[in-house]
Amino acid sequence: MPQTWQSIGAKKRAEQDRAIPSEWKLKSLPPTSQLDVRSIPSTCGILTADEISITEDHDAYSLLNGLHGQSLTALEVTTAFCKRAAIAHQLTSCLTEIFFDRALARAKELDDHMERTGRAFGPLHGLPISLKDTFNIAGMDSSLGIAAMAFHPAPANCPLVDILLAAGAVLYVKTNIPQTLMALDSINNVFGRVLNPANRALTAGGSSGGEGALLALRGSPLGVGTDIGGSIRVPAMCNGLYGFKPSSGRIPYVGPMGRLTTTRGRLGLQTSAGPIATSLRDVEVFMEVVARARPWETAADALPGAWEEQGRAGDEWEKPVFGVIRSDHSVTPLPPVANVVEETVVALKEAGLEVVEIDSKALAECQMLAYGFFDIGDNAMLDLIEETKEPLIPWLEGKVGRKAPKSVEEVSELHAQRLEVMKKMLKVFKTPDGRKIDAVILPVAPHPVPEIDRWNTVGYTSSFVLLDWPAGTVPIRMVNEKDLEGEVQGKSLGTLDNRTRMLWDRKTVDRRVYLDSALSVQVVAPRLQERRLWQAMDIVDRVMKRKASTQETTKAKL
Amino acid sequence: MPQTWQSIGAKKRAEQDRAIPSEWKLKSLPPTSQLDVRSIPSTCGILTADEISITEDHDAYSLLNGLHGQSLTALEVTTAFCKRAAIAHQLTSCLTEIFFDRALARAKELDDHMERTGRAFGPLHGLPISLKDTFNIAGMDSSLGIAAMAFHPAPANCPLVDILLAAGAVLYVKTNIPQTLMALDSINNVFGRVLNPANRALTAGGSSGGEGALLALRGSPLGVGTDIGGSIRVPAMCNGLYGFKPSSGRIPYVGPMGRLTTTRGRLGLQTSAGPIATSLRDVEVFMEVVARARPWETAADALPGAWEEQGRAGDEWEKPVFGVIRSDHSVTPLPPVANVVEETVVALKEAGLEVVEIDSKALAECQMLAYGFFDIGDNAMLDLIEETKEPLIPWLEGKVGRKAPKSVEEVSELHAQRLEVMKKMLKVFKTPDGRKIDAVILPVAPHPVPEIDRWNTVGYTSSFVLLDWPAGTVPIRMVNEKDLEGEVQGKSLGTLDNRTRMLWDRKTVDRRVYLDSALSVQVVAPRLQERRLWQAMDIVDRVMKRKASTQETTKAKL
Repeated sequence: MPQTWQSIGAKKRAEQDRAIPSEWKLKSLPPTSQLDVRSIPSTCGILTADEISITEDHDAYSLLNGLHGQSLTALEVTTAFCKRAAIAHQLTSCLTEIFFDRALARAKELDDHMERTGRAFGPLHGLPISLKDTFNIAGMDSSLGIAAMAFHPAPANCPLVDILLAAGAVLYVKTNIPQTLMALDSINNVFGRVLNPANRALTAGGSSGGEGALLALRGSPLGVGTDIGGSIRVPAMCNGLYGFKPSSGRIPYVGPMGRLTTTRGRLGLQTSAGPIATSLRDVEVFMEVVARARPWETAADALPGAWEEQGRAGDEWEKPVFGVIRSDHSVTPLPPVANVVEETVVALKEAGLEVVEIDSKALAECQMLAYGFFDIGDNAMLDLIEETKEPLIPWLEGKVGRKAPKSVEEVSELHAQRLEVMKKMLKVFKTPDGRKIDAVILPVAPHPVPEIDRWNTVGYTSSFVLLDWPAGTVPIRMVNEKDLEGEVQGKSLGTLDNRTRMLWDRKTVDRRVYLDSALSVQVVAPRLQERRLWQAMDIVDRVMKRKASTQETTKAKL
Repeated sequence: MPQTWQSIGAKKRAEQDRAIPSEWKLKSLPPTSQLDVRSIPSTCGILTADEISITEDHDAYSLLNGLHGQSLTALEVTTAFCKRAAIAHQLTSCLTEIFFDRALARAKELDDHMERTGRAFGPLHGLPISLKDTFNIAGMDSSLGIAAMAFHPAPANCPLVDILLAAGAVLYVKTNIPQTLMALDSINNVFGRVLNPANRALTAGGSSGGEGALLALRGSPLGVGTDIGGSIRVPAMCNGLYGFKPSSGRIPYVGPMGRLTTTRGRLGLQTSAGPIATSLRDVEVFMEVVARARPWETAADALPGAWEEQGRAGDEWEKPVFGVIRSDHSVTPLPPVANVVEETVVALKEAGLEVVEIDSKALAECQMLAYGFFDIGDNAMLDLIEETKEPLIPWLEGKVGRKAPKSVEEVSELHAQRLEVMKKMLKVFKTPDGRKIDAVILPVAPHPVPEIDRWNTVGYTSSFVLLDWPAGTVPIRMVNEKDLEGEVQGKSLGTLDNRTRMLWDRKTVDRRVYLDSALSVQVVAPRLQERRLWQAMDIVDRVMKRKASTQETTKAKL
């Protein structure tokens, strides 16, 4: 009897339900009118005081200190995050595969290892890590929320999973994504819609949206997403987290996924895997551990390079120099976004750093080219969606359809144009007088976190996949009342700009929906210079945190 | 009036003739029966004693010492190499573009700079460097020996030319190549056939054959070739030189060349540029100078990495471990080649190093895939050849023709298969008990330097373009009488093996033609680990030189 997409979805959700012990289930769900659900994990009574502390008072770095120093056991840390992830999922549909049993058994083994040998199993000993659904774990689905792909378990671990396990990590959940992965709202017919825990009227972002919501609720200390247009940086922005998209080749590639065996993607832009975290030092832990595993010795698509060989911000004798790009010449940033970029520039200057204004029209070219690559004509995902006749998710409706496969000439022309614009954009890293610019600051998106299904454009993020530059999201502050008073400057730059202005026009939006949502900046660095990017993000982060704490002290004094 | 390929060729050759001052012309050419012409440059009377010493008693490293230390001037060094290159060209047709005037003027400027400032212009101050015809120099042809491409000067320097000039190098000649670049004998209808100066009955190799012949005659202290199937390593082998093919992305790319603006090649294997030299320390000079110029800051296809970040052979506490591949399972090496590989293994072991036997059937897969990529269906070069109706060169006749352009699916399938075999081949760098193998030794080709137009197969070299591993040629010794006595072991492995056996079968060849021709080994290392490869080549080179000198001492004592 052929299965329908509805029956397959129901079976997957029943599987999820069974994977969550009844004592970890919420007695009642909050009313849909309750937009902010962040307090529920610590108030619902499911977590012990210790578990609340483990999940709220630590980042991954600090948990690892406890685990290595034996003040924490792998079992107690894993239990705490399994419970909290279970709660997070009930509130936001952030998970796909749930395997707490396996995780708790693994945690016990790690504790036994520690007791037996007196030594940690590896640098990530006992740390729970959540993975986007795209990463293959042997024996488990990578269904991507497509009914036809469910119940086709992966035959083997992907290289990154092997690396994390060898380093002592505990895997316990995979996280929810949008149908096709090519949308900025993480919703599909199998696992439902990921909600933003800070404001369920706003999007949680995508495509690593499940990671974003899970981390925001502290249901994971460290997550791994993938990014081919903004899919790490966008959910990081939506959930006030750090998101780090490396260059392609830095972290081994995730595919092929389940039944999605198309090879056409090898000719397009390459997906990067990278961390989503609650602190920047956690980003460094992830990047350093992966580099120390020397992935280039086992994965064909990984490039060699120790962490300390991945560039650095500043020279031995000089302070780092920042650039700032305020507009991509395609969409003018809305006031809260323009404000946070300006505040970052001012703060960096006040901290004694140089910030150079960059006006790069080539960014609009990058965006057009990236769209060209997305339309390369890979219909494999649509084929699978149509196999069970499941409907497209709302945001994709009308936006996605069968593409005429591009010819070899068209594809190679895209690659040639890409090389041209890569060359042009390298100039961004020089000051007019020829000195090095270490990193560039710009918006993650031209708008604040929008309402569900209203995200329009990925030009500010996809351009850095096209260029293959590492790029990261640094959360800065929340939208405040003052931000809401601003108006967009200048004339509209075209269709995408018009649509973005609709997110600010009082006739088409209630601006107050943005209040207290997360505002971030994006930082980018040249290709394969991940440490240089990280150091630049760290500077931005420290400067902005110092500024925030000074302001609070001043406020308190007044 | 439309020009014929004959008239265009005559015009280009007349241009060459005018570029050589009459006092640098040989009074008479040696008879074609004179096979070894290596003594002519120093005996023809054109070079002064000093010029003979400059061109024969130094490698690039030692010339740079003299130039930096002001015991040599750029003008005298450049004059010596211009004169010697002129002689070399008359003997072997090794040049395409000849621009001695420009070079001598540049040398004077560099000397003036040194006198004025007391400092060298850059690390390559005053060093003449020869470039394969493929490198664009502003205002000069990159005709590739195709009539229709002649008299279409390049609008700008390619990135590598800018780097070399900024480092103080003197460019003075471009060197000859085969029609289409996809042949192992460097002959075309415009510039004629490059001859092997050690034995004009044997091939000089290709496609960087002009470089090979020029360096062998010491008409250049350092040359730059390109390699997409063996085009640096093969002419290095044919001329007893060091040839070094880096991974793609290490040295900036050369294209596009003149009227050859096709972009289809962007989807195929990527050409690497690299040095051909008379010493290994010259290879290091080149690689280090290019890395110090930070090409990744200006060229879109260059990857970041200082020389000291490009891997290393051996760990801090351990000696390097070598692997040896004796056959690619497609063509069994002929006796002289098998002998030189075995001697290298024995010598390394005698020197206390570990050498692990590797039997890798996947090499045959690499070869098949590389051929698949070569047949991707780029007919642009044929279009240009047909434009003037010029004939194909003898070796290509019947081997090359219009290809049905492969579809996107076929090309992407090639890329997917490539990733699979890249992954498989990574295992080559582990011992059975899991330790690191630093580099692998194998033949450059399964046969010694063959007679003109008899080269059959590039599997031993093209596989490392497919895998994108750095690979280099180390000259070991000459073919001796004892080599000639050996017979091929085992049954034929197929068509290519049959054809190779014809190069050893007394019915189809006079083996004595190989006597005193150069024998080399190839060394390969993992992707983007150029310094690791260089260090491994250096070990092989030192061990084999020490062995040779010990044998000579022993002989002398007897």
